[in-house]
Amino acid sequence: MPTILGQNQYGKAENRVVKITREGDTHHIKDLNVSVALSGDLDEVHYSGSNAHVLPTDTTKNTVFAFAKEHGIESAEAFGILLARHFVDSCEPIRTARIRVEEYTWDRIATSDANSRFIGADEVQHSFVRQGQETRTAQITYDGENVEVLSGLKGLTVLNSTNSEFWGYIKDRYTTLREDYDRILATEVTSVWRHNWTGAEGVRTPNWEKSYAQSKKHMLQAFAETYSLSLQQTLYQMGARAINSRPEIDEIRFSMPNKHHFKVDLEPFGMKNEAADGAVYLAADRPYGLIEATVLRDGAEARIPFDMTNL
Amino acid sequence: MPTILGQNQYGKAENRVVKITREGDTHHIKDLNVSVALSGDLDEVHYSGSNAHVLPTDTTKNTVFAFAKEHGIESAEAFGILLARHFVDSCEPIRTARIRVEEYTWDRIATSDANSRFIGADEVQHSFVRQGQETRTAQITYDGENVEVLSGLKGLTVLNSTNSEFWGYIKDRYTTLREDYDRILATEVTSVWRHNWTGAEGVRTPNWEKSYAQSKKHMLQAFAETYSLSLQQTLYQMGARAINSRPEIDEIRFSMPNKHHFKVDLEPFGMKNEAADGAVYLAADRPYGLIEATVLRDGAEARIPFDMTNL
Amino acid sequence: MPTILGQNQYGKAENRVVKITREGDTHHIKDLNVSVALSGDLDEVHYSGSNAHVLPTDTTKNTVFAFAKEHGIESAEAFGILLARHFVDSCEPIRTARIRVEEYTWDRIATSDANSRFIGADEVQHSFVRQGQETRTAQITYDGENVEVLSGLKGLTVLNSTNSEFWGYIKDRYTTLREDYDRILATEVTSVWRHNWTGAEGVRTPNWEKSYAQSKKHMLQAFAETYSLSLQQTLYQMGARAINSRPEIDEIRFSMPNKHHFKVDLEPFGMKNEAADGAVYLAADRPYGLIEATVLRDGAEARIPFDMTNL
Amino acid sequence: MPTILGQNQYGKAENRVVKITREGDTHHIKDLNVSVALSGDLDEVHYSGSNAHVLPTDTTKNTVFAFAKEHGIESAEAFGILLARHFVDSCEPIRTARIRVEEYTWDRIATSDANSRFIGADEVQHSFVRQGQETRTAQITYDGENVEVLSGLKGLTVLNSTNSEFWGYIKDRYTTLREDYDRILATEVTSVWRHNWTGAEGVRTPNWEKSYAQSKKHMLQAFAETYSLSLQQTLYQMGARAINSRPEIDEIRFSMPNKHHFKVDLEPFGMKNEAADGAVYLAADRPYGLIEATVLRDGAEARIPFDMTNL
Repeated sequence: MPTILGQNQYGKAENRVVKITREGDTHHIKDLNVSVALSGDLDEVHYSGSNAHVLPTDTTKNTVFAFAKEHGIESAEAFGILLARHFVDSCEPIRTARIRVEEYTWDRIATSDANSRFIGADEVQHSFVRQGQETRTAQITYDGENVEVLSGLKGLTVLNSTNSEFWGYIKDRYTTLREDYDRILATEVTSVWRHNWTGAEGVRTPNWEKSYAQSKKHMLQAFAETYSLSLQQTLYQMGARAINSRPEIDEIRFSMPNKHHFKVDLEPFGMKNEAADGAVYLAADRPYGLIEATVLRDGAEARIPFDMTNL
Repeated sequence: MPTILGQNQYGKAENRVVKITREGDTHHIKDLNVSVALSGDLDEVHYSGSNAHVLPTDTTKNTVFAFAKEHGIESAEAFGILLARHFVDSCEPIRTARIRVEEYTWDRIATSDANSRFIGADEVQHSFVRQGQETRTAQITYDGENVEVLSGLKGLTVLNSTNSEFWGYIKDRYTTLREDYDRILATEVTSVWRHNWTGAEGVRTPNWEKSYAQSKKHMLQAFAETYSLSLQQTLYQMGARAINSRPEIDEIRFSMPNKHHFKVDLEPFGMKNEAADGAVYLAADRPYGLIEATVLRDGAEARIPFDMTNL
Repeated sequence: MPTILGQNQYGKAENRVVKITREGDTHHIKDLNVSVALSGDLDEVHYSGSNAHVLPTDTTKNTVFAFAKEHGIESAEAFGILLARHFVDSCEPIRTARIRVEEYTWDRIATSDANSRFIGADEVQHSFVRQGQETRTAQITYDGENVEVLSGLKGLTVLNSTNSEFWGYIKDRYTTLREDYDRILATEVTSVWRHNWTGAEGVRTPNWEKSYAQSKKHMLQAFAETYSLSLQQTLYQMGARAINSRPEIDEIRFSMPNKHHFKVDLEPFGMKNEAADGAVYLAADRPYGLIEATVLRDGAEARIPFDMTNL
Repeated sequence: MPTILGQNQYGKAENRVVKITREGDTHHIKDLNVSVALSGDLDEVHYSGSNAHVLPTDTTKNTVFAFAKEHGIESAEAFGILLARHFVDSCEPIRTARIRVEEYTWDRIATSDANSRFIGADEVQHSFVRQGQETRTAQITYDGENVEVLSGLKGLTVLNSTNSEFWGYIKDRYTTLREDYDRILATEVTSVWRHNWTGAEGVRTPNWEKSYAQSKKHMLQAFAETYSLSLQQTLYQMGARAINSRPEIDEIRFSMPNKHHFKVDLEPFGMKNEAADGAVYLAADRPYGLIEATVLRDGAEARIPFDMTNL
């Protein structure tokens, strides 16, 4: 046969699992989208169609829901680690398991209201509103020895209405852009960061929830506090701030579209439209600049695939 | 000619206008998506292609951006009223203008941080993160005499993890559903409400921003505080609460998908999965129940089109 | 109680039903997305939560799938008529049923190949590729007496690279657009048309499949063959052609975005970019012109809701 | 500083360029979405914000449109090669350029009609309807020496209504799936294949348009003609067929969701629902199986990134 099989993987994608935990009348919610990808000794299912080494994707789905009940969902990362280890350790032909998770965050609905005529309204602890600011992500990979945990986020849209410039760039035959000393800088952050924890015995597991909250906070603050000469500079500051502030992180990759806000030309209508006076902008869809880069702790290995922030 | 022209309208849709207002170092942002639809004496452009009565959609676009600079954007509703009146009052063949607006809400990025090593971080007042919970909507229609203002929201996803039952329904040959005395109730609220203000002289204009915030709050609280025997009942309570709490609102329409969360059958794996113990649910995509209804102040006219909450 | 219930409806939306029919080795496929909306004597479920008059949406879902087996799916329209009649005629509190259908079209995969080394390849009659040009739609409403059938389509993207002009329009303070005598005209057609058949006894039922194919063909040809001075003119010609060619159609409504293709200014690079020479265009996303209108057979009643083409 | 910069790239994404070519009254259309990503000596823009080595993304956008006029668009691949070579060869700090292209296919609107009353209708050669079956893709990378060309497609949805089985798989504690000897096999193909041409002098350039059409045809035929025991087997056959039939291709990767069509249980309604009789299926959204694999010409290097088919 003149063709051979290369890298391959399979599993059930986008299992939408919601787990409610009750502490008396106070409920907690975890809302995940879990995708399983398994690889291993799987040549035959491709060559001959023999499923003798195949754990059906339907079974991987069942496992996700059963594990949510058996073990609860402490965090996306912890849940993914449990699942990845299970598939590799319990199923002989499977050598590597990769679990990808999206997490949707819910806030409580504030029902307490001094002016409320509805008795007991302040005691409702089972009502939630989806937060919507960003989607939290995680990818856990286990190869029978080591665990690799990538945490991340996507859809986090941020904007600075000043403290952004762009000038001093290369000019060639196709250049028409004017330099700008006071522009809007806006982007929709996709970011993936790698924890240096690998599941080795005796090494303390990070507090995934706290690590996420702090990493997001540091990135947001670096975005806000950087006086920007380029979106690349802002990106680098965001990554450096996260790594410098969080010892558990060794590597972070960003995909940041430059969401252009063009100052509208109002001269034909006899109006000025200067940033300093509070300008009117057209928020453009396409095309957009797209800035992607990895920031590494000095000495750390680069392991996050370049396209991962683009999924 | 055996065919004739019926209702028609035209205009520029989805003008993405962002207005920054500066108060010293403190910036404010309004981020709208504005769609203009004009109708009037427009038979000829359809029959013969004569554009003599046509204000080009490009001009309506320019007007949106110019007005944002000339008048600022106090609120989606106020901005829409200005635009609607302008098109009808300034362009003879145009008899009716309908302005639809989507508004995206931004929160400030909290940069103040007791532990921050970044001097001055707490003074950044030009950095924003998109909120993402719901999209605010408005529709303003002006026919040369009266203004009709519909405010609304979409994409507001809410969930009660208990206090919802469903039983006592009709059974027929095709019924398989089991009654449920403790289910998850989740929906993504789309809602449009009509203000009784019509722009008549001497009648005080509502405070659109406050009206919106309070209406949303009352709907959320009614969702949380209703012990639900059907999604219809919850819907009605949300509408009644809004109208009873806000004298400026006469009519409200909802489109609320029943976002099914199915308790997963874990019996095959030897596990119980009871709501009372904190269950695991499958969040389903399609099909979904779809509940739509109008709630009216007694005596008020029903004017919101049935499909409008579905756009 | 100072509030009352207005128009309301409920049902199961987006039932994705696929029916295979086998004629020996030749298979046929019907692939629908069916949404049910019921209304009637339903006040109590809103006011008190009593479900005594409620046929559960789960049952309406079951009915869709059972009917696909019992009756087959001859066409989206015929299937919708069966369902609408069933719900109203078999369930006392239900007075009106509205069935909305999306249909996805599949082509056969051509496996016959003169050069094929794969014996028997030309006999495969069970392999399909989704066509993707447009989505076919239908809405059937039955109130216990009459049936109203709206057929339609959405997502049909068409483009004329010449024979389109735009000039002679109103100029005001906000006009900057230049007149154009050779522009691209492109739109994504959404269209809904009403059949004059109402299910009255003795009146022949249209051939829904043929009616759809012919209506689409006439609209496409009218788009291609109209020398256009405005998108409104083209729209009207499309509607008039359909009604004049198809006696079973009395009314048609269109929603047609003007998908702007802007000639790129290449002067800064020393190049001309004229339509007559074969120009380069930027295909813009937003904003876009949006042209909506109804065309009626003279004397026919206008019944299609204005927003329906916008869903 | 304890952090360093890793892999990075930037450019303008999603330039929507449409080129019309006129041959007398016969027009031709090329409709592309072009994304540019440049990398090279770009540390300083990240570390200090100096743009001295930055060719602005705005300039890369201008270049795309200017090149479409200067050179025309023969094919997505040829256009991408021109652009990639230009950026690396003309801009010193840029060492690698990667051009990604989506192409949208248009068919001519058939206006010839024996029954047409519209004179000259059969001569319209400037009217197009978007085809919609799949989106064609290409990625061209140039590092100053070699060109790598990946062609591909996405959104090609195919279905076999028989000749698919699934049985003989691993059973564990979480298995509930029943074996199936006659199921629907449906997937939405995403595929990327690598040409062995690298731009070396004296080596004939592939005919990109023909290569694409033939590759797609062979994959479709292999899908239709494979009696399938697993989706993996079908995938492998599609890849092997493409490589065996097209000597210019060395490697191909697929991402193929298993679009589940579940036979609906109609037993509660007293009906059988067997595949052999023409069954009714529920087309499910999520979760779905996801099968991904690379097929290689024996001896060829695996170079397509695993995630690329997932973008």
